[in-house]
Amino acid sequence: MEAYRVLEIKQSVFENNDREADKLREELKKDRVFLLNLMSSPGSGKTTTLGKTIAALKDEFRIGVMEADIDSDVDAAAIEKTGVKVIQLHTGGMCHLDAGMTRQGLEGLGVQDVDFAILENIGNLVCPAEFDTGAVKNAMILSVPEGHDKPLKYPLMFSICDVLLINKIDVLPYFDFDIEKCKEYVWRLNPRMKIIPICARTGEGIGEFADWLRSEIKAWNGEA
Amino acid sequence: MEAYRVLEIKQSVFENNDREADKLREELKKDRVFLLNLMSSPGSGKTTTLGKTIAALKDEFRIGVMEADIDSDVDAAAIEKTGVKVIQLHTGGMCHLDAGMTRQGLEGLGVQDVDFAILENIGNLVCPAEFDTGAVKNAMILSVPEGHDKPLKYPLMFSICDVLLINKIDVLPYFDFDIEKCKEYVWRLNPRMKIIPICARTGEGIGEFADWLRSEIKAWNGEA
Repeated sequence: MEAYRVLEIKQSVFENNDREADKLREELKKDRVFLLNLMSSPGSGKTTTLGKTIAALKDEFRIGVMEADIDSDVDAAAIEKTGVKVIQLHTGGMCHLDAGMTRQGLEGLGVQDVDFAILENIGNLVCPAEFDTGAVKNAMILSVPEGHDKPLKYPLMFSICDVLLINKIDVLPYFDFDIEKCKEYVWRLNPRMKIIPICARTGEGIGEFADWLRSEIKAWNGEA
Repeated sequence: MEAYRVLEIKQSVFENNDREADKLREELKKDRVFLLNLMSSPGSGKTTTLGKTIAALKDEFRIGVMEADIDSDVDAAAIEKTGVKVIQLHTGGMCHLDAGMTRQGLEGLGVQDVDFAILENIGNLVCPAEFDTGAVKNAMILSVPEGHDKPLKYPLMFSICDVLLINKIDVLPYFDFDIEKCKEYVWRLNPRMKIIPICARTGEGIGEFADWLRSEIKAWNGEA
């Protein structure tokens, strides 16, 4: 039997998503919960990255994961194996999560015993960028096979994120991916973006991401 | 100076997209224009596949390409080099094209001298699946690095397409991609899906895709 719940979340009724997102962030601040929103294209390696990141941090933080998907439970089943609390959110076809939907997810997960909550958003570089989920920080993954030109084509996503993980660097020899050009494109849109090359499969670079998260979580809790 | 135009398309005003799509298809039928809608995740290789497909078919058909993108001209510039007619469509943040937007694109492209029109849709496995563009056939690409579980996670896209190109098969040795499992997942959703493994970079499999297109175009024109 699975240890995770599946929650069908409903479209939000709030007219002003930005206001709802700010309200959610204030509540998270009060409750000392750090919420990370993780976004990428389908197949960039969000779940594998998450698994390795959880392994690096689960002895320091009480972690809770919300796996958003249109239909399947594949990701919750994978994360469940790490031993942390996880809930599968089904969006019923919706291509993104907004603050109201994220709130439903957090209520379903239960954050009274969580200090680090993670939302794995729908695999999509377009729509999730347009909706503030209420997360404290936004992270994104771009994988090497997708190409270094993606910041030119999906500029909003690269503009609203705080950290970019360039994943699958182990296959750099087989692809035409110019990491310096990628950084240049990203920083032109978003000069403050933290960029970390990683290989989620082998764990390379996950330590640096964990360091970044650790320091952001401390800052959020006023311990920096 | 670029030989392609950039057209800013507007959100459609039609309430019933399915009806508009059927209307557009009827007009295309009358004008003997075959419209293919090509969809995939960001970075699956739509533009490279298109370039190789154009090279295989441009002596037989008068081809016209609509490159839809949120913001950049990268793809139109690439396709322009093949020598066929091309227009860049900017959706201004919109995550998909519907029939009304496709009509604006076709009008901008001009199809009086085109028998094979191609729409390269926004890189997104979610929203474009929900809107009938008026295309005669829907094609999609899934690339090996994205993983064989994608049909489970984006079922609608795999259900509405007529042909699936599994791209980047040259990197199969470096990824955990089970092609038989992928086919099984796809055919469970869509038993009539034609599946063609390709490598757009080297041209492998493009001949089979060109054969499929040739026969579909003939059928559309009542020449089968």
